[in-house]
Amino acid sequence: MSAPGSGTPSPVQGITDSSIGDFLERLSSKDPTPGGGGAAAIMGAMGAALVSMVCNVSYAKKGCEAAEPELREVCAQSEALRRRLTAMVADDVSAFDGLMAAYKLPKNTDEEKQRRSQAIQSSLKRCTEVPLACARDCAEVIRLSRRAGENGDLGVISDAGVGVSAAYAAARSAALNVYINASSLKDRAFAERALAELDGMMTFCAAESEAVYSLVRERL
Amino acid sequence: MSAPGSGTPSPVQGITDSSIGDFLERLSSKDPTPGGGGAAAIMGAMGAALVSMVCNVSYAKKGCEAAEPELREVCAQSEALRRRLTAMVADDVSAFDGLMAAYKLPKNTDEEKQRRSQAIQSSLKRCTEVPLACARDCAEVIRLSRRAGENGDLGVISDAGVGVSAAYAAARSAALNVYINASSLKDRAFAERALAELDGMMTFCAAESEAVYSLVRERL
Repeated sequence: MSAPGSGTPSPVQGITDSSIGDFLERLSSKDPTPGGGGAAAIMGAMGAALVSMVCNVSYAKKGCEAAEPELREVCAQSEALRRRLTAMVADDVSAFDGLMAAYKLPKNTDEEKQRRSQAIQSSLKRCTEVPLACARDCAEVIRLSRRAGENGDLGVISDAGVGVSAAYAAARSAALNVYINASSLKDRAFAERALAELDGMMTFCAAESEAVYSLVRERL
Repeated sequence: MSAPGSGTPSPVQGITDSSIGDFLERLSSKDPTPGGGGAAAIMGAMGAALVSMVCNVSYAKKGCEAAEPELREVCAQSEALRRRLTAMVADDVSAFDGLMAAYKLPKNTDEEKQRRSQAIQSSLKRCTEVPLACARDCAEVIRLSRRAGENGDLGVISDAGVGVSAAYAAARSAALNVYINASSLKDRAFAERALAELDGMMTFCAAESEAVYSLVRERL
């Protein structure tokens, strides 16, 4: 990814158009983006996609007729989450690039220093909100993975287990970015609200993802 | 993905050339591949890429000079794992397609039945070996993530936490595919060896990934 001010526009919007191989290559490089935040959003989107897959396969199977309305409702929600989490890959890059650009603002005069500090704080808020929204969506994917795991066809039930594992890894990963950025925020009321919401979500995600994984293993 | 015998060649080799958006779309569809196995390999490769990123960023930073030889060694290994896990995405699809093709073999005569059964058993072995190799590589990524997390620059330390979370989700996901396919194997000695190796790895992966995540959180 291009550093802010390098003259090359950051290809943020197109990041999910890059191939998986290229993304992995760029992820491994010393460039700051894409980084852990983008990887988290992709894992969340994979979790949502796998919940959708369980539903889409199960409709077609005999013995799943009774569960069809439930699975159709789950799939509509998981598809919305997949699209939102896919878009979040670019959101994460643009939030982080914004923060890097704020740190590079001039700080020669008092006025410049103040403007730079405000830009940093405003960017840090966005760098807290984006991963918090990612964690929130991943908690929803985990909720849906239980419904897919309970009602899905046995032939694809393992995919619900992969989906819940991906969504939990994504939530824990997004949480790390909330912790870092919230710690530098001067607006402590905002930071504390974000951290309190995150704590509640992470407690739920840890217990529920473990329960869904066990449920899937028992149905294998 | 095309079903075996549909006339369209399965684009297995090129699967990591597809865009992230397309892959997620295909993952959500009712087609059996790409499925959870491919998603597991990608998460493992993301984990390896993030370990590499921590190393690549840290070399350039002041204060990391003493850790440079250690980080260069870690990075050489994580890059090899990233490449291997990326290639495993296609391996998983081809192993699964092979199994589906075996199930579709004719079974009209005793000879056909025997040939079909042998083909299924041989495909099931491959469908056990591929995710077992994936879990093995993910355990290595988890090992490396500790070294990256202990020695990496604080500015990218969270990426070691995302890396270990991705690798653990990948290992647990691959494990589900080993459980399913090993359970249908007639060669019980082979199946029991695979399951015993997997059990040991999963015990290590659960404890070590939790320890590395905590280590990273403390260094944030």
